[in-house]
Amino acid sequence: MASDPRQTKIEALLGNETTFRAQRRSYQPHLCPRLAAGAGLTRPLEGVDLEVLRVAREQLPFVSKNKLLEILPNGPSRPVKPLRLGVVLSGGPAPGGHNVIAGLFHAAKQAHPDNQVIGFLAGPKGIITDKHVEITGDMVAHYLNSGGFHMLGTGRDKIDTPDKMKKCRETCGALQLSGLVVVGGDDSNTNAAFLAENLRGCGTQVIGIPKTIDGDLQVPGLLQIPFGFHSACMAFATEVGNLNSDCKSDLKYWHFTRLMGRSASHIALEVAFQTHPNVILIGEEIEEKELTIHSVVRLIADVIVARAQAGKNYGTILIPEGILEFIHEVNVLIIKISYIIAAYNRTASEEESFHKLPFEDQVQLIDNSDIWRDYDSRVFLGFPSLLQKGLLLPRDSHGNFPFSLVNTERILLEMVATYLRKQRAKGLYKGTFKTQNHYYGYDGRGTFPTKFDCDYGYNLGYTAYSLLANGATGYMAALQDLHLPVADWRPLGIPLPPLMHLEERRGRLELVIAKQKVDLDAPAFKLLEQERQKWAEGDHYRFPGPIQFDGPAAATAPITLQLNSLGQ
Amino acid sequence: MASDPRQTKIEALLGNETTFRAQRRSYQPHLCPRLAAGAGLTRPLEGVDLEVLRVAREQLPFVSKNKLLEILPNGPSRPVKPLRLGVVLSGGPAPGGHNVIAGLFHAAKQAHPDNQVIGFLAGPKGIITDKHVEITGDMVAHYLNSGGFHMLGTGRDKIDTPDKMKKCRETCGALQLSGLVVVGGDDSNTNAAFLAENLRGCGTQVIGIPKTIDGDLQVPGLLQIPFGFHSACMAFATEVGNLNSDCKSDLKYWHFTRLMGRSASHIALEVAFQTHPNVILIGEEIEEKELTIHSVVRLIADVIVARAQAGKNYGTILIPEGILEFIHEVNVLIIKISYIIAAYNRTASEEESFHKLPFEDQVQLIDNSDIWRDYDSRVFLGFPSLLQKGLLLPRDSHGNFPFSLVNTERILLEMVATYLRKQRAKGLYKGTFKTQNHYYGYDGRGTFPTKFDCDYGYNLGYTAYSLLANGATGYMAALQDLHLPVADWRPLGIPLPPLMHLEERRGRLELVIAKQKVDLDAPAFKLLEQERQKWAEGDHYRFPGPIQFDGPAAATAPITLQLNSLGQ
Repeated sequence: MASDPRQTKIEALLGNETTFRAQRRSYQPHLCPRLAAGAGLTRPLEGVDLEVLRVAREQLPFVSKNKLLEILPNGPSRPVKPLRLGVVLSGGPAPGGHNVIAGLFHAAKQAHPDNQVIGFLAGPKGIITDKHVEITGDMVAHYLNSGGFHMLGTGRDKIDTPDKMKKCRETCGALQLSGLVVVGGDDSNTNAAFLAENLRGCGTQVIGIPKTIDGDLQVPGLLQIPFGFHSACMAFATEVGNLNSDCKSDLKYWHFTRLMGRSASHIALEVAFQTHPNVILIGEEIEEKELTIHSVVRLIADVIVARAQAGKNYGTILIPEGILEFIHEVNVLIIKISYIIAAYNRTASEEESFHKLPFEDQVQLIDNSDIWRDYDSRVFLGFPSLLQKGLLLPRDSHGNFPFSLVNTERILLEMVATYLRKQRAKGLYKGTFKTQNHYYGYDGRGTFPTKFDCDYGYNLGYTAYSLLANGATGYMAALQDLHLPVADWRPLGIPLPPLMHLEERRGRLELVIAKQKVDLDAPAFKLLEQERQKWAEGDHYRFPGPIQFDGPAAATAPITLQLNSLGQ
Repeated sequence: MASDPRQTKIEALLGNETTFRAQRRSYQPHLCPRLAAGAGLTRPLEGVDLEVLRVAREQLPFVSKNKLLEILPNGPSRPVKPLRLGVVLSGGPAPGGHNVIAGLFHAAKQAHPDNQVIGFLAGPKGIITDKHVEITGDMVAHYLNSGGFHMLGTGRDKIDTPDKMKKCRETCGALQLSGLVVVGGDDSNTNAAFLAENLRGCGTQVIGIPKTIDGDLQVPGLLQIPFGFHSACMAFATEVGNLNSDCKSDLKYWHFTRLMGRSASHIALEVAFQTHPNVILIGEEIEEKELTIHSVVRLIADVIVARAQAGKNYGTILIPEGILEFIHEVNVLIIKISYIIAAYNRTASEEESFHKLPFEDQVQLIDNSDIWRDYDSRVFLGFPSLLQKGLLLPRDSHGNFPFSLVNTERILLEMVATYLRKQRAKGLYKGTFKTQNHYYGYDGRGTFPTKFDCDYGYNLGYTAYSLLANGATGYMAALQDLHLPVADWRPLGIPLPPLMHLEERRGRLELVIAKQKVDLDAPAFKLLEQERQKWAEGDHYRFPGPIQFDGPAAATAPITLQLNSLGQ
């Protein structure tokens, strides 16, 4: 059969493999010198003050004693007896996750050929129900430098009850795990802290790995950004850059683009520096300036009117997906409506629950509430119906508002269109307003990791091994100085308890890792303020192109990190 | 100031330029041997029968005499006196357009240093109103291998009245153009044919260049695909491949993705081979099999039910944007409603026009029409409201239905959800059905051209010069054997009149270039039929990754072309 050249050619064209995938597998991620020699040695890093809240000291008495650690080369190399380590991927996938596993695996095998790495399947519930596979060299080689979390799958289960914690202890005990590596965002690292505290009894140390494309897991001075952020931003920047190219060619569309990233605007800020759009909204700025939704609409419309006067009826607009949360008047209504829905549902039967009522009845019910003021009604009725309906969306099981389900870009687009019609009636706007709207999220989350994230994930895996081999637990692995070449990165173990604060969840205060928002005093935002007027008026589009993996164009790091590293 | 290293670094980070752009500019597109030596010599290519309709012979008596031409190397090199050539970009942007201009410019300058190339601005209206720039070597070097049409801009104006044609003659006469190159799709090449016929008097020859990402401008045996198709497909394939990666990691979403591409399903077919989604709809197949919308819904739902039984509540689904046109029952309603709207609007005032009526009145009006049968009502009322409203959308100025404005992916998603609810009630479906929907179009259209399209566009520019230098007019430039390496490509001049047929436009028959749909008898579709059950059941995802420009992964050509070139 193999002798039929047509058939051979067809099989090659129909196979799952590509030259590109083969190429990516052959890339050996770079290690920073402090990790290259193996497990290394941990040493407290002085001079950084990390305060721990009293409530954290109470809930996490053991791991709260952790001191910041740095990792130096040439530590105790071969463990006396082989270690068995577990790893779990948690939350949404982020590019570079497979390289965390690869780094952990290679570091473990480098230290002792009989060291084992166990991968839990489909997220934390894989620990709870003990669903796992042993990770092999072939698996690592197959997934090296590829995107997604599909080597093990992922999930969102939290280990947040005594029963689940007990099951985890049983699994880790039965598997005789010396260590467990939890790859995840703020909630997963919160989990890691509690696991570390609770798994002392069975001798399992726990290390968290900072993952999230949203970029909101940061520790000022120690952790600039989690892994995955750069790759997702570059994927979004490719798409937005292509929209720049399209609108500059076709000269007739305004592109309203919403970007994934939860509440913080880190992604939108980075993508703005990558692409130079005509308008960029930053949630944290809107909050600080206490802008109303109508002033946000006007801010967009003013750019559209000014460009129309210059004969430019086209442009690109970036909108972070969590923007509504930062608009005070909208947020007040969200909170009040959440309260009203919860109160109503407590007494209503399943069939009569709030979300089964017709829209008019829902509005009536809200109107009748004691906490609903005339002013609230006026604000609510002034919103377009798309936003009104958005505000009434079913809350999640924690009572939280589902921001990502609201088509914020279409709401703003409609409101801008309405405003422009009024300006046109007054003779103040004479342009044409044709639009397209876009939402980029899942596609960027699933991209192949950039070289930066390939190296970053791999070094994080090595760092986790190093921390475990040196007896650490209740730490998050990190690399300092990510804006510099890999050769200058410095591995750290950051204690988890100082990162925690109290936050309202499901109606009560919980100890969780604090999310970091965009720092309006840092150089990146200051420089955005300086540049954006120029971007608004002219066509200063930047076209980053598709992510490259060979040649000089492959050597990129987030622009915001580089700007912020320059200081004021 | 330049001595402040911080400032210098900031300026570099804030500039529009990137290492990537610089790299792309440095790529010198490859030329096929028949073009490398210069203008070359044209010769009739025998053995291919190209029939011309009588109506085309009547309307285009001069250019209808054209014979198919091939281009051989070493023709008459330096023209006696320098030529001035015009070029215009027409319709939506397509990656590779700047390389057409670069090829034309370099070929012209190679033949005679005083040859000039004039670029008309913002599409055909640039000819009508004589808005132009002289193209320089610096401009060409700046835009070489970049995406979009922003060197000159583009537009959709047609030269379809005696007055516009007269103005074009005046412009070409005043500029003393020996030749005019029209870069565009089927309509633009139709324009090129009429321009060729009409500009004989002022000595301007006209050559069309086959451009459109949709891929529907083809000449069986002579032109496999227009330029731009491959790049757009690869950009979409990156995005869909990333969705594959995301859903295979997160294991919980069905991604419904609509792809640009007008009525034909060429893009969806190519992207399917690039990514191996779980479901792929092909409009031409739906038409041939006379599938109803409910059977299309069931076709999707059956895959979802089968995968749920195997524990897989995730997957990817590709939907060509023009799919509704191929569903007979929907198309019948579209045509009837278009007729009813047009009839009503003829007697209604501006304020009372159909689209200002409330939805209920619109439906009432349709119901009262003589051409509306009870059966039509039943079909219409069986559709979800999103589709009902979609069918009533305002028609364009030609009375055409605006397919691209209908969120077909959301309509199908809603109908699938409804169907699955019924299956669940019967106990036949026990899965979870969480979804995300996507539309990719403008982003892919604006991408950087792949190496394939960089070379293809450049060779087309050279071919156009060669045809002009040899006195040809009323031809489309083409390259044969695009599935082979550039060294084996063979430049052609394809006469435009044989490509034309009669088509209803604005209610009357017009002579236009025929669009090519997916050939259901060609190997690509046959192999899709063979593979898709496997893709539906298993996870045979292919991850093409971002478009690469260096190394072996950069050497790609459309898979459908390669499959079709293998014959049955």
